[in-house]
Amino acid sequence: MMIAARFFAALLLLAIPATGLAEGLRGTGNLGLVIERATGSVLIVDTSAREMLGRVEGVGDLSHASVVFSPDQRYGYVFGRDGGLTRIDLLTAKIAGRVVQAGNSIGGAISDDGELIAVSNYEPGGVRVFDARTLAQVADIPATGADGKASKTVGLVDLPGRRFAFALYNAGEIWIADLSKVETPAITRLTGVGKLPYDGNITPDSRHYLAGLFGEDGVVHVDMWQSPLKAERILDRYGHGEEPLPVYKMPHLEGWAAIGDRLLLPAVGRHELIAVDTRSFAEAGRVATHGQPVFAVARPDGRHVWVNFAHPLNDTIDIVDTLTLKVIHRFAPGPAVLHMEFTPRGNEVWVSLRDADRVDVYDAATFAMKGQISAQKPSGIFFTARATRIGQ
Amino acid sequence: MMIAARFFAALLLLAIPATGLAEGLRGTGNLGLVIERATGSVLIVDTSAREMLGRVEGVGDLSHASVVFSPDQRYGYVFGRDGGLTRIDLLTAKIAGRVVQAGNSIGGAISDDGELIAVSNYEPGGVRVFDARTLAQVADIPATGADGKASKTVGLVDLPGRRFAFALYNAGEIWIADLSKVETPAITRLTGVGKLPYDGNITPDSRHYLAGLFGEDGVVHVDMWQSPLKAERILDRYGHGEEPLPVYKMPHLEGWAAIGDRLLLPAVGRHELIAVDTRSFAEAGRVATHGQPVFAVARPDGRHVWVNFAHPLNDTIDIVDTLTLKVIHRFAPGPAVLHMEFTPRGNEVWVSLRDADRVDVYDAATFAMKGQISAQKPSGIFFTARATRIGQ
Repeated sequence: MMIAARFFAALLLLAIPATGLAEGLRGTGNLGLVIERATGSVLIVDTSAREMLGRVEGVGDLSHASVVFSPDQRYGYVFGRDGGLTRIDLLTAKIAGRVVQAGNSIGGAISDDGELIAVSNYEPGGVRVFDARTLAQVADIPATGADGKASKTVGLVDLPGRRFAFALYNAGEIWIADLSKVETPAITRLTGVGKLPYDGNITPDSRHYLAGLFGEDGVVHVDMWQSPLKAERILDRYGHGEEPLPVYKMPHLEGWAAIGDRLLLPAVGRHELIAVDTRSFAEAGRVATHGQPVFAVARPDGRHVWVNFAHPLNDTIDIVDTLTLKVIHRFAPGPAVLHMEFTPRGNEVWVSLRDADRVDVYDAATFAMKGQISAQKPSGIFFTARATRIGQ
Repeated sequence: MMIAARFFAALLLLAIPATGLAEGLRGTGNLGLVIERATGSVLIVDTSAREMLGRVEGVGDLSHASVVFSPDQRYGYVFGRDGGLTRIDLLTAKIAGRVVQAGNSIGGAISDDGELIAVSNYEPGGVRVFDARTLAQVADIPATGADGKASKTVGLVDLPGRRFAFALYNAGEIWIADLSKVETPAITRLTGVGKLPYDGNITPDSRHYLAGLFGEDGVVHVDMWQSPLKAERILDRYGHGEEPLPVYKMPHLEGWAAIGDRLLLPAVGRHELIAVDTRSFAEAGRVATHGQPVFAVARPDGRHVWVNFAHPLNDTIDIVDTLTLKVIHRFAPGPAVLHMEFTPRGNEVWVSLRDADRVDVYDAATFAMKGQISAQKPSGIFFTARATRIGQ
């Protein structure tokens, strides 16, 4: 009965035109989601065919949005600005679950076993955790700092062993939550790490957590492999710099690039990337760029880093050679370059052009254009290969 | 109509017993193949459910076998010892193409765009290249060394930009083939690199290619980011060492582990791993192990390395802490541990036990057993997440 129903469901799919998803069996390793920020919709895309397969509407306020994927690479979890957590079925182009879990959220993560979805909230603050299949809430972690007040949380990432790390914006703390027993989360608190951590991220091996500070210069570093854990300050000149330029947009710290034993971080308020040596966490050089970097995205082999910029210089992309730390190619793909996502093995890169209502696909070796996809005010691009990565 | 559809669906299901694959749509990110070396068959497995979904027979001589995957993670390409190249459809558990392309082959690779399959041959030597969909031959690269003789090829890996690297066993050369124009392969030849390179591998960022030498001590290193390319000798004591132990099995050089800016290589003929610093390519320490290492496999976050051993100590696994370079856990899962494969984000690891006819699944954080799967003389285990990696 259940099998017959599934078979019938597959037949029904044949009635959905223009999706490319009705053909029956297909793999999911070459799929992705593109956020349409103004319309609360997402596109399902095929990175091999370089085409749109379907559109899903009713995903809420996507003016800030991010996505993680289930281990089978069938479901995408969209974290919207309105506190919405939406589970999208990429094979049927349908919403397979949605909860509005808070008043205002800023991002999420999926546990290493794929079973838990954690969401970082501005309002009411804290982190809430959901069953990845049912979206039922399974844990609530209020972020009450050493000052006794509830805090917004930012920079939420997953760690091995069903753990998550995040920063408390108001309290200036970094917490690690171990959810091996989800009914009794075990929290490790690092207090007094610095004023107003506004974003955080972890290296691709999930070892080094860094949080940028809005309330003072510098960055906080936690080496997750050390015991006991401790927060240490690095890059004390990071932030406003000697002669600050106006800051048009706080750079996403998730916008850094990791290449071998170096990180390239967007410099706050400056037309530069800062190279950091991940042995010493000292500065290892700077890259002069076209504008204030927003995202610095490494080609998967690390040979090049693609960089986009804040308004008003946001029509341009710089491509940086990571051996020489020089820009080797600069071009203007179109108005409002918001995001870049490489195919998993780095042969191509997708670029969202919000004000051109278009996503362009480039060859990552020759920089030649390979394809274009129409999209309504596209912002973030997320491919299913993210399901294979830790520290998302 | 509906009754007929149900009846037809039921009939279809009856024809495919015990596969779990007939239920219709499913993602492919959590699938894998297990080689059954004695019976020329492969199992299709689900890493989330920790179960077997189906068996495919007729895959030829799998006494030495490896697998790469298509970008959509639907198809696995099995390279057999008999020169067979078999395309397996993981969603239907059927052979979707097979050619016996040479007399004796040793491995293969898939181009970064997923369009070309390259196979490294002992007999007649050289590398042959096939269309990934049709398995039609599209290029033949005879490996004729500077000595004018045809050579066996080993250590074939993919590089960005539709390129492949491999070593010429007889000629002592390393070649890089650029197949951007597949009808006219462009070959870069590094000659006189050392005697009898028996295996080669590349770091996960596809930058550093290393080949082990059978004919002399030491290892050859090529930094693929430098121009012009050159081969340099490193680890001059690598190989037989001061007081050599009998070598029961040449370690697979693909059996190394890459962790941050270090590699852990199996030491030939010794009960040790050698740590190599990937800035200097100098030795950075040794790890004393239970036996002669065959595979050293890094947990995806690099915190631990799991090591199996050559006969007669092949019932044991050592788990090495990569910060301290000490064995922190040693256990004997069963007779003839042949291979280990981590789930993509490293929460679990699958271990093949040839002489127990079984694959065991362990929790990679607690080392607790999570499941067991029956298999006929299992050897290699390959998960579809390999489709997302360069330098396979």
